[in-house]
This record gives sequence, C-alpha cells and structure tokens, in this order.
Amino acid sequence: MVFGNTGNKSASGVCFTRDPATGENQLYGEYLINAQGEDVVAGIRTPKNIATLKNTMPVIYNELESTCRSIEKHYRDMQDIEFTIENEKLYILQTRTGKRTATSAIKIAVDMVKENMIKKEDAVLRIDPNQLEQLLFPTIDPKYPTNTIAKGLPASPGAATGKAVFSSKKAILAKERGEKVILIRSETSPEDVAGMASAQGILTARGGMTSHAAVVARGMGKCCIVGCSKISVFEDAGVFIAGDINVHEGDTITLNGTTGEVILGEAKLTRQGISGDFKTILEWADTIRNLGVEANADTPNDAKTALDFGAEGIGLCRTEHMFFSKERLTYVRQMILATTEDEINTALERLLEFQRKDFYGLFEVMGKKPVTIRLLDPPLHEFLPRGKEDIEKISKEMHVSTERLKDTIQRLHESNPMLGHRGCRLGITHPAIYDMQVRAIIEAACELAKDWEGGGSGRNGTEHKGSTLNTTTKDYKYPNIEIMVPLVADVKELIITKKRIIKTAKKVMEEKNTTVPYKIGTMIEVPRAALTADEIAKEAEFFSFGTNDLTQMGFGLSRDDAGKFLPSYIKQGILESDPFQTLDQKGIGELVKIAVTKGRTTRKDLVIGICGEHGGEPKSIEFCHKLRLNYVSCSPYRIPIARLAAAHAALKERIILHSQTSQSSQTLP
Amino acid sequence: MVFGNTGNKSASGVCFTRDPATGENQLYGEYLINAQGEDVVAGIRTPKNIATLKNTMPVIYNELESTCRSIEKHYRDMQDIEFTIENEKLYILQTRTGKRTATSAIKIAVDMVKENMIKKEDAVLRIDPNQLEQLLFPTIDPKYPTNTIAKGLPASPGAATGKAVFSSKKAILAKERGEKVILIRSETSPEDVAGMASAQGILTARGGMTSHAAVVARGMGKCCIVGCSKISVFEDAGVFIAGDINVHEGDTITLNGTTGEVILGEAKLTRQGISGDFKTILEWADTIRNLGVEANADTPNDAKTALDFGAEGIGLCRTEHMFFSKERLTYVRQMILATTEDEINTALERLLEFQRKDFYGLFEVMGKKPVTIRLLDPPLHEFLPRGKEDIEKISKEMHVSTERLKDTIQRLHESNPMLGHRGCRLGITHPAIYDMQVRAIIEAACELAKDWEGGGSGRNGTEHKGSTLNTTTKDYKYPNIEIMVPLVADVKELIITKKRIIKTAKKVMEEKNTTVPYKIGTMIEVPRAALTADEIAKEAEFFSFGTNDLTQMGFGLSRDDAGKFLPSYIKQGILESDPFQTLDQKGIGELVKIAVTKGRTTRKDLVIGICGEHGGEPKSIEFCHKLRLNYVSCSPYRIPIARLAAAHAALKERIILHSQTSQSSQTLP
Repeated sequence: MVFGNTGNKSASGVCFTRDPATGENQLYGEYLINAQGEDVVAGIRTPKNIATLKNTMPVIYNELESTCRSIEKHYRDMQDIEFTIENEKLYILQTRTGKRTATSAIKIAVDMVKENMIKKEDAVLRIDPNQLEQLLFPTIDPKYPTNTIAKGLPASPGAATGKAVFSSKKAILAKERGEKVILIRSETSPEDVAGMASAQGILTARGGMTSHAAVVARGMGKCCIVGCSKISVFEDAGVFIAGDINVHEGDTITLNGTTGEVILGEAKLTRQGISGDFKTILEWADTIRNLGVEANADTPNDAKTALDFGAEGIGLCRTEHMFFSKERLTYVRQMILATTEDEINTALERLLEFQRKDFYGLFEVMGKKPVTIRLLDPPLHEFLPRGKEDIEKISKEMHVSTERLKDTIQRLHESNPMLGHRGCRLGITHPAIYDMQVRAIIEAACELAKDWEGGGSGRNGTEHKGSTLNTTTKDYKYPNIEIMVPLVADVKELIITKKRIIKTAKKVMEEKNTTVPYKIGTMIEVPRAALTADEIAKEAEFFSFGTNDLTQMGFGLSRDDAGKFLPSYIKQGILESDPFQTLDQKGIGELVKIAVTKGRTTRKDLVIGICGEHGGEPKSIEFCHKLRLNYVSCSPYRIPIARLAAAHAALKERIILHSQTSQSSQTLP
Repeated sequence: MVFGNTGNKSASGVCFTRDPATGENQLYGEYLINAQGEDVVAGIRTPKNIATLKNTMPVIYNELESTCRSIEKHYRDMQDIEFTIENEKLYILQTRTGKRTATSAIKIAVDMVKENMIKKEDAVLRIDPNQLEQLLFPTIDPKYPTNTIAKGLPASPGAATGKAVFSSKKAILAKERGEKVILIRSETSPEDVAGMASAQGILTARGGMTSHAAVVARGMGKCCIVGCSKISVFEDAGVFIAGDINVHEGDTITLNGTTGEVILGEAKLTRQGISGDFKTILEWADTIRNLGVEANADTPNDAKTALDFGAEGIGLCRTEHMFFSKERLTYVRQMILATTEDEINTALERLLEFQRKDFYGLFEVMGKKPVTIRLLDPPLHEFLPRGKEDIEKISKEMHVSTERLKDTIQRLHESNPMLGHRGCRLGITHPAIYDMQVRAIIEAACELAKDWEGGGSGRNGTEHKGSTLNTTTKDYKYPNIEIMVPLVADVKELIITKKRIIKTAKKVMEEKNTTVPYKIGTMIEVPRAALTADEIAKEAEFFSFGTNDLTQMGFGLSRDDAGKFLPSYIKQGILESDPFQTLDQKGIGELVKIAVTKGRTTRKDLVIGICGEHGGEPKSIEFCHKLRLNYVSCSPYRIPIARLAAAHAALKERIILHSQTSQSSQTLP
C-alpha cells in the first residue's frame, strides 16, 4: 500500500498516454496533491490538469512521462494509468488500454503506424466501424446542457436542430425561405419524401426502426427518430404533446438520432468530414478488404455524396423514389387512374422524360462504375392519396371525381401490401411501366455514350466491383448498367420480364443506332427465390439480396408493425438484436447461404451483393464476407463504415486462418 | 369397312359394359337401325336404348353381351365399345376404358373385387380422390337447365340454393325463421362467421381462393364462391348487379361452388353420404395408407361430422373461432379495451367459462383420439369492429366512447397484419390470454377425466395416429391433448410459452387434484421456424405445418390479395396451380423438407403433421406421404378425399418400389 496523502510531496492521479478526445500525443489526465486515488474520482476536490505537474514536481513529471511512454510501447496502445506519488516517489498502480473517441482512435492508430509501433492492419482493426457514426453525422456537443422531453427509437443517427413543422408542405416552404425545420408526423408516407428532404430531421410517433420514415431518412443520411410513442402528434392543430410540454409549430427542437432523444430548444452541433487521418485509415482499409462497397442512391446528388464517401458503384437505385416529387406523382396518378391506353401512354411518356434525365444524370456522375437500377417495386396504391382531405384535394387537382379516385383506391387496397401486387408482379401484369423504365435507361445510356464518344478517348473500361476509387479520366465508352428485377419468387417471372427488357432495349438501340451493353439480374428477397436460386441463376447475371424483405418474409415480421413487440422481444432476450438492423444469421442468413450455394452451383462467376439495410452494418458485412459475396451496398453515409467493416472481416479471417495454420503445423511431425 | 346402313338387319351403336352413371352391372348404350356410327352421335335421329336390341335382334344382343363380358374381363375394367351390325353379323369396331361418374366408379371397383376381377388395391387406385367431391357435397342436378349470370372462383365445392341476403344479421334472422339464404358480401370478416354458419352458401365479390370467406366456408363444408369480380355488391341497398341483372334481397339464387357459377333462381340439388360401396372403398384405403387423417374442427359439432367421415383426431382446433359468437365477442372486446388488470381479468374469466365448456365438449366427442388445440392466433384488431357504423353500434352496446374505441383500433392497426402482432407474439406480450386458454383446456380435461372415472373402465388407452377408427368403448382415462403454439419463429419463443403453459397446467391440476397428460408442440408456419427446426424440435413434442402461412411468407403472397395477379400467373404458365390449393413442392415443399429433416435429426420420433389447406389436397398429401409425415389434417368434408389420397400415395410408392426391385433382380446374374 502506498499513500498519496502524506503531505504536499504526495499526490494521486490518473493519466492517459495520449489525449482520449483528440488523440494528440501528449499526457492527458488529472491529479490531486495530498490525496488518495479515490479522491481524484470522487469529485469533492477539483483535480488539477496533469500538465501543471510539470511545474509542481518537474522530476516526477518527467519520470511519469517516460514511464508512460515505456508502458505504451510495451502494450503498443494508448494506456489509461493510475499513479500515486508518495513523498516524491512515483508508483504506478494500474494500467489498461484507454477508452477514446473515434477521432482520437483514428489519430492514435495512424500516428502509431507512423511511429512504427503497429502495422497498418493493426491500425485498421483498432477502429470500431460503429464508432465512425460519430464522425459522419452532426452530433450534439456534449459540453452544453440539453433538455430531453421524450425518447423514441434512434432510427437514423446524427443530430438536427430546427423549427417544428407538421406537414411536408410546410417543410418545403420553410426550406424555400431558408429556414431549418424538423418534420414531425404521426408516421410518414411516400408523399412525405419531399418534405423529409427539406427538413433537417424527422420525428414520428409511430413506426419501427425500418418504418418508411426510418428507411428513407437513413437513405438521405438524415437524423431521424421514430416510434416516439410518448408524444401525441396533432398535425392539423400543429402541435405535439410530450408529457406536460406542448411543442407548437415554429418552436425550436433538437433531435439526437443517435440516442433517440427529443430535446426542447436548440443544441450546439458539431460535424466532421472525411479527411486527414480518417481518410488514411479508410484507404488502408480499402487495400485490405475483398468486398466491394457500393451505395444505395437514387439521384445524381446522392451519387456524388456516395462517391465522396468512397462508393465503388450504385448497388441499388430505387426508381420509385424518382416518382415522388409532386409533378411526377401527378403523372404516376394519371397513369393509375387512366381508363384508356392513350391516357396511360400519355402519362408514361411524361414519366419517361423524367426518368431518362434521371438516369443520364446518374450514369454521368458514376462514369464507368456500375449502376444497378431496380425496376419499380412498390404496389401502385402507395402512389395514391390517403385520408379524406388529401383525396378531395387530389381529385380537384387532377379533375377526377372523388368517387373514381376512391374506387381506384379501394380496388387497389391490399390487406398485406408487403406481400402484395408489387415488384415484378406489377411488371408482368402491367408491362408498360417496366417498358417505359427500360426505355428510359437505354435511351439515357445511348445518349451518354454518344456524348462521351464526342469528348472521351474511346476504350470501354467499365469497372469490376472492388477496383480503384474515383476514376475521373473518361477512358470509357458506356455507362455500366445493371437492370435489376425485384420480388422474383420463381424463375419464370424473371424469364418473362427479361424477354421484355431485351426486346425494349433492342428496339431503343435500333432507334438510337447505338449499342450499349447491360446486365440483367434480380433481387433475392422472397424466401422462395433463395430456395430456388439454382434455377434463378440460370437467367440472372447477378443477385442482390434484399435482406429487408427477406427478413420480413422469412421471419414473418412486418417492419412497420414489429415495433409493437420487438422491443419486448429484445428485452426478454428472445432476440439478441433487431433483425432489421443486424442480419439474423441463423435464420435469414441460412436463406442467404442456401441462395449463394445454389446460385453459384449454376453460375460459377455469379456476382452477388446485398442492398438491404444490413449492407452498412458491420456484423452483417462480416457475414457477407464469409459467404464470399462480391459487394455490399448501403446508404451513402454508411459507406465509410462499410469500407472499414469489410477490412475488419478480411483481417479477422486472416487471423483465424493464421492461427489454424500455426496450430496445424505444430501438430505436423 | 363394315356397313350398318344396309337395311333393317343392320345397325350401329355404342355401349358401356356397365352403367357409367350408376355402375350397375348391365349393358348401357344406344344404337340406330340402318345407320353408320356417326349417325348415332350426330343427334339427327334419336338412338334407341340398347335394352331394346334384346327384342329386335335377340341373337345379336346375346352375342354382344357375351363379347362385352370377354372384353371387360380381358381389360379388367369397364369398357366403352363401338359396334356395327351388318346384315345380322356383329362387328366390334373399337373398345376403350369408359368414363364414369364417381358413384359408378366406386360401384364398379367394389363389384369387380367381389367378382375376383381385380384386387382391393386396384379398386382403391381406380377412384380419383378429387372425384369424391362430387359425392360429398350437394351438387346441381345436370338434368335441369340453369341460368348462369356470373362466374367467380370456386372456393368451396357443392351447391346451395337460397334467398339472397346482404348481411350476417339477416342471415341469422332468416335461419331462425327457418329460411334458406345465400349470404352475399363484398368480402367477409370474422364478424360474418355466424352469418356464414347460418347461410346455405356464401358469395363474395372480392378475395381469393384462400380469403377469409373461402377458408371459413371450406372449414364449414359450405358452398362458397369468392372473387366474383363481375358483380357489384351494394350491401346497404340490399342488391347486387351482375351485368344487366339486379338481384335484390329475397330473390332466390343458386351457387355452384364446384364451378364458380352464380345461377339465377332455384336449381335442383342432389346429395349422397358415406355408405355402401363408398364406405367399403374408404375402409380398404384405410388398411393401405400410412398417413393418419385428422380434421380441422373447432366445435363438438364439427368434431362429430369429422368422426362420421373417418377422422382419427383433431389436427387443428382454431380456438379463435370459439371467440366469434356475438356474446363471446363482447368479452373479447372488453378484454381488448380494458384499462385495468381487473377489467382484463373479469373479461378473461367469462371467456374461460366458454372455452372450458368448448374443450369439454370437444374432448368428450373425440374420446381417446388426439385433439390438437392451437392457442389464439390472429391479431387482436381482428376482433374489433370496422367501418363507422359498426364502431358506433359497438360503442353504444359496450358503453365505451367511440373515441376510445377508435383510438384502440388505430393503436392496434397494422400495415401487414399477416406479419404482425399475433400467434405466440401475442402470447408472450399478453400472457394472460394464453394462461386463460391453457386453464380452460386443463380444467376441462380434469373434469372430463373425473366424469370418465365415474363411468369408464379405467385403462388409459390414448390412441396413436393411424389407429382404428371410431372406438366407442370408453376404455380410457384422459383426453388426448396436444397444445399447439402458433407462429413460432425462434425456439426461445417456444421455451417461454412452454414454461408458462406448464406452470398454469400444474396449478390447475393441483387445484383439481387430478393429473392429466398433455403434449406441447408448435406450428411450423414461419420460414425461419423451418430453417431452425433442429433447435425448435428440442422443445416441441410435435410439429404441425401451417402451410397456408408458410406459403404466404415463403412465397411472399398475401392470400387475401393474390387474387389480383394469381389468375394471370396461372394463365401465363408462371405457376402451374394456385399454391394455396396445391402445395408448391419446389419452394415451400423445400422448407417442409428442411424442417422434417432438421426436426427429426434432433428428435427421432417427432410426430409431424400438416394442418394447412393442403392437408386435404391429393397431390400435397402424396408429398406429405413421401416426406414421412405422420398425418394430414383437413376440413371434415375432405376427410374421405384425404383417406383415399393417402392410400394412393402408399400404393404408388409400392408400385415404384416393386418395379425397381424387379428391374434390379432382372439385372442380377
């Protein structure tokens, strides 16, 4: 036992060998003169900054500093050390690896490589991919106090501050006025997408971690809290109630999407991009990983963000998101409400123009990187208004009787839309929609190919998954198109859809007098597709696992409804985690495994990716690596996490292989 | 070439060696004097009954009769023979196996066994199980003309005639008045069950082959046409429109559930039970088959019908069906709307009384045959009213404000109820409901055991699946109870539910000072359950495949919505048949196979059955036989079909095995 409380030449303290907040390579810590260790942490006396010890006890400080260096060198990591000084003699009581922020972790790791203390691989392994979220989204500065008034599900990380608005329209108008707003809804529907895009953050009273609001917000990289059941939202009155507090339209609130906290008033936010050491670590990760990392992106803007974050392609472009702006929605509705072929064609022609422009933009941004376009997926009723008021409004706007509108809504109503008339089922029964989409894709590709031919150098160098990032020289002729058919459950669906795609593409190329290559593949998102993947692989040039839907169907869980019992399931230990966040390896993973095995039995070089929400989640990424998938695709803002997680997966495997090799060589004679 | 038109000593005719309508062992056919064969079928002249040939040409008739006998003996089956008489000389032109009705097929088969012409196995194989439907349900006598005004999906076979009514209430009132009615609805909901039970048949404008109306009607053995999209139903006005024809409340219509035809006016119906040769064939089938045949039955009445048709147990008792009578529904709603524990308990206590009585009745009827009771399965919102009017009515009846009722409805609303908060998920989050149900089961069993002890002989002889039928001696002590947990997706759900079942059962038995044995098993209806069946079998004493839900989830098809594209899929050849009618062996069957293999790896003697709609469908039954399931369970009215189909499956396997053995012995040296 040593004593730090024998007088003014004694002291106790705690110090980190490097700054756990910034990673600066200097001692960081606190001490108290004439005190035992417990006094330092008890908070009765205010400890002093370790730097002042230099002045108080310079010799001891130097000894402490060099001892810290030695310990750190020994353990090859930043240490959290407890010490006591008894009558000017230094005693080290304890050392352990120190906890640190993401910023600090990255700086320390990169510095230690520079100092030859660790290898690049060690540096990469030391950064927890999940911790990167801290760096990628705005966060609430913990130095300032906040007033939390409710807590919901942390659906999309980051933080946002703004004025409360209760309708998408108001969010859009506010944005036009340059105001920052938080969109608050009981729950969101596709009509809210434009409003969500205009808001800083989204708060809903209902819905789970993969509800519409949550999925769309994560895609946008926008802070979002859902299922905040403790608040009551009165959209028409423009108020929500949280306990005793009424928050009115225009009141400022802050959302912490990382914790789910709803905060009254403004909070101080901080944000960091990818540069410096962060960039270095990710580049090291890129040299290690085998998995490609692509992005779920629907617009040229999304695509640019994705490229900035290091995406190697677009793994999922959800074409229906292109339908949701107000003007386009009108044509979609005209198409749905049409009673003659002519009306349908007129509406489709207008949509064709929009889609062609969209695809041109996407292809242009992505250069030779693959762009995987999923044909229309949701059921048609998702595009129709809900609620009496909306129906009346839309009926007036479209010059359609409310009766006809209501009739159509009722006719298209589904008990379980998740299992309904959507995806390729729609493509097969209403082929004109897919025809239009394929035409838009191929027309855009032909036009771009011509434009590139005018300016570019000529060689067709479309990239393979996993090739180097951000190629900017235009040494390519064509965009790298992959057309993806959703919701296939039987190979015959793919055969029929494929035949039609090829026919339309051929026709367009003849019209345009240009040839562009493209691939046709399919989502694997229906359990039956996984179970019959050998047959499907005969027709599909690539697979992309839609693990959201595969989880919904395989687990029998509706992501919009599961919020009612999933929390209780996790609490009771029935489930380890939300299967919509972390892929359920035992059950849904088994389906993935079956599909990979069966698919590659038929087609050895089948390119397989994953584009569900799990594509950006480290544990699920490790699973994808183990199954030898070619790539993962995730929200642009999760790309760095995926790059790092993919490197981790590769490194962990090397470590296991290495230890097995050493073991087996030990047992060899 | 021979000529039947050389004068009055020549003739041409067609004859069956036995009556193709009744099976009577006598020549049946027609001939025309001085005519060629084509004149007989052309319909210009009216042919004469073959019996009259006996008088016209007695020698030729005797020669024809004995020739027919020889040919029949040679082919060992009833023949359809063409003949010509040229100048008093008989020529046989052609013979082939004759088509016949189900009645005729059965009589001929049984007679030929008696005549030592064929073996019992041949007789069984000659009856097409699907053809039995003709015998089990009332059918429209084809001798009378009918006026078909619309055609829908033939959801439940048979025929029914009655006055059109447009609400369940009116159906019930009409039944009380002794009137026969057809219930016509846009679609049915659980609230219509009592009305459906009171009607002769059901017609809906919407819904597919496994919509609510279809499933419930098949369960009731009641004629039903669904998805009759050509009619528009105006329930409030009490009229439906089919083309130019308006059918008003009280107008008589007839449904042909076997063809889907809606007929204006009354049609002549015929019906036949199980007796005579039909009974004989089924008894022969019973000695051949390996699969047990049980019934889906919810009431003592259903159970009696099932026993009459030869059920060896109840494979599925859907306890929620016990909740749907008006009085009970009130208590279910009280429970759902309760705000205090006391209110919940009061409601549950009343439900307990009903359920106990139900189970006592079921157990009493079934004797020592197994009774598999599925704990509550549907989501709670299914018990709440829909539509403004109903909500107002129920709110008044229950003395609950419409706001509170609406709030509850909104709170319980689900986007995809099929994948929602139901089955064991409800049991886990609202354990009081399952506690009540288990208490009712065990209390009923204890009471019955005591009553039997008073009157019975003593030995506990509960039956195994597949044992002899209709045991009436009460040489048993306890009912044969199997408690079945629905919608398990993970073994932990079963562990938790099982623990609670055992606890409640133990408590009840202590209270009653009686011990009754029971088994706990699970439905396999979620794909994930099939994929993790090895783990689930550790806890489950039996499996029962819920192939309806397994198909919905595995195929990503909502049975209530699939009607919108399934017909087109079948027409285009994407699907061979409706996967809700015939089990999709390639996809869903693969899940069944995985579950059987994994389940029996853990528990060798695992009892496995199937209780989905497929349990009564011959092709699916053959698949179950091949996978070595222990039993199939189906609607009472399909039991004879299942008995015969199970025998067919066993015989076909023997034939294949036999041919393989002969082949291999041929190749032996």
